[in-house]
Amino acid sequence: MNNKSIGNGPMSTSGLWLEDRQLSFRSKIPIPALQEGEALIKLRLAGICSTDLEMVKGYYPFQGVPGHEFVGEVVQSAGDESWVGKRVVGEINLSCGECAECKAGRTTHCLKRSVLGILGKNGVFADFFSLPVENLHPVPESVLDTQAVFTEPLAAALEIQQQITIQPSDRVLIVGAGRLGQLIARSLSLTGCELFVLVRREKQVHLLEGVRVQPIWQADLRAKSFDIVVEATGSPAGFEIARQAVHPRGTIVMKSTYAGTLDLNISALVVDEIRLVGSRCGPFKPALRLLEAGLVDPSPLIERVYSLEEGLQAFEFAASPGVFKVLLQPGD
Amino acid sequence: MNNKSIGNGPMSTSGLWLEDRQLSFRSKIPIPALQEGEALIKLRLAGICSTDLEMVKGYYPFQGVPGHEFVGEVVQSAGDESWVGKRVVGEINLSCGECAECKAGRTTHCLKRSVLGILGKNGVFADFFSLPVENLHPVPESVLDTQAVFTEPLAAALEIQQQITIQPSDRVLIVGAGRLGQLIARSLSLTGCELFVLVRREKQVHLLEGVRVQPIWQADLRAKSFDIVVEATGSPAGFEIARQAVHPRGTIVMKSTYAGTLDLNISALVVDEIRLVGSRCGPFKPALRLLEAGLVDPSPLIERVYSLEEGLQAFEFAASPGVFKVLLQPGD
Repeated sequence: MNNKSIGNGPMSTSGLWLEDRQLSFRSKIPIPALQEGEALIKLRLAGICSTDLEMVKGYYPFQGVPGHEFVGEVVQSAGDESWVGKRVVGEINLSCGECAECKAGRTTHCLKRSVLGILGKNGVFADFFSLPVENLHPVPESVLDTQAVFTEPLAAALEIQQQITIQPSDRVLIVGAGRLGQLIARSLSLTGCELFVLVRREKQVHLLEGVRVQPIWQADLRAKSFDIVVEATGSPAGFEIARQAVHPRGTIVMKSTYAGTLDLNISALVVDEIRLVGSRCGPFKPALRLLEAGLVDPSPLIERVYSLEEGLQAFEFAASPGVFKVLLQPGD
Repeated sequence: MNNKSIGNGPMSTSGLWLEDRQLSFRSKIPIPALQEGEALIKLRLAGICSTDLEMVKGYYPFQGVPGHEFVGEVVQSAGDESWVGKRVVGEINLSCGECAECKAGRTTHCLKRSVLGILGKNGVFADFFSLPVENLHPVPESVLDTQAVFTEPLAAALEIQQQITIQPSDRVLIVGAGRLGQLIARSLSLTGCELFVLVRREKQVHLLEGVRVQPIWQADLRAKSFDIVVEATGSPAGFEIARQAVHPRGTIVMKSTYAGTLDLNISALVVDEIRLVGSRCGPFKPALRLLEAGLVDPSPLIERVYSLEEGLQAFEFAASPGVFKVLLQPGD
């Protein structure tokens, strides 16, 4: 191993900066020198997700460059130069490899982790950013940037199937047909289960056309009639719908974080023997396989693409009700 | 089928009566005529459990004869007379057989269920009581009354293994070494897992002697170090201990009902990808098998046996801190 490429890249980048709930565009954000095993990546396309929007609202105490959904190109690598020139996506948890969680193979739960654009690590809403090469995955040639940029949230959707068995005979409801719900609908539709997606707008129904799912409106939901309910709204109202829809001994997968705490009737969960499963980051390789095979195409979810300089407008638009995926691209 | 034995039994019984949180002994409690498929049972031995104590505190709005843990003898049967004279234990959920839950095989979750001594059905703290014969299980000859009376709570302990896979390599903690925790300790100790039981009194440690478990005090607990934690205290403090002890992607089995609601940090559950599993009534046949095989002997948990007439003292004693199993027997 040699470090000869360290120090040849740009010393700063332009990008978005979050500080005290204020998002701004900055033209000179310092880039620390690459450490052994790290790569410098030039952004090609980035996605704004609900977590980014929540961070701006102050839900997470993050300061720095936000953003964690991206497709980019490796322009420099400290260590393995074979990465240079590759189009890549990247896992967002940076793990230590030495704590009890890492040693148990649960690296996304590393006790000392930093998280790209979320916790202690500058993110991807910038022309350039760095990541350890061990986090990177090359993007298959046939996968477009407008598809590859969805790898991270699609992987998060696939985490559900890492955690619970979804049988083809299961009756499954997804609560929420927004950014994440739409991706979950696309991945779960491949399992052969009887799949319903709770919709609240006609536009959500239109985006589900061609996906093998049944849109359902709240008025048509039958209580205790689902084996599995995936809660993808992150709202107490969404949880309440999930709770009513699942039958005794059924499973509720909680795919979204909630601001604050939820007042939960635990006794009712015990009496009904409900299983609650928290679900976060998922596996990238299967996500890329599904994109490459054309079994999932998330690109119809894209609403608009903004430049990084237009980042504030992009965030504002992404936060409007009913808006799906908003992307950011470098200025040049 | 004929109904000739209907109406030959006693028309009333003496026993305990709960009304407006007041427990009393009554000498004449009416017994409705047996319906087709029901058996009249003479009590041999009954157990007081935490649910009974909670009911007296007004936690459940039950009125009637409490009690659901029993071993008795069938003295009359409306339909199948082969049951008469048999020593039996009985499942406590009376199901309709026709609702969606029953048709799905989840009869303990019947939407129209009554529950022996808990919901809409007089219980077993009486000389005589009735149950459908389909709820009954004959007690193997070698199983003593003082063991058979634990069948229902032992079945509830075994429900854990009906719901989740406990691998021999798992590190498991039971929070709570009281009535239920002790039974769970005895059943889970047979799985080969590395099993710890959180203790708070020396007496709990003594009762675990001879059981293949490791008693552990709270000061010695290491955070995030267990694959599975069984919460058997029914207190928010117990849940908090479980939450801290389980590692990311681990499982918390909630074996107790809680009075009121619990303020839960759902986001933390999502981030740590915790699995919560509510767990209630379990399978009787395996419980009887373990008792017959001598693999579980709960009888050392018995503290005292009272007569039904002494029921109020029995309840008072059972509610004192650190008391394990208190039994009731008929007066004669």
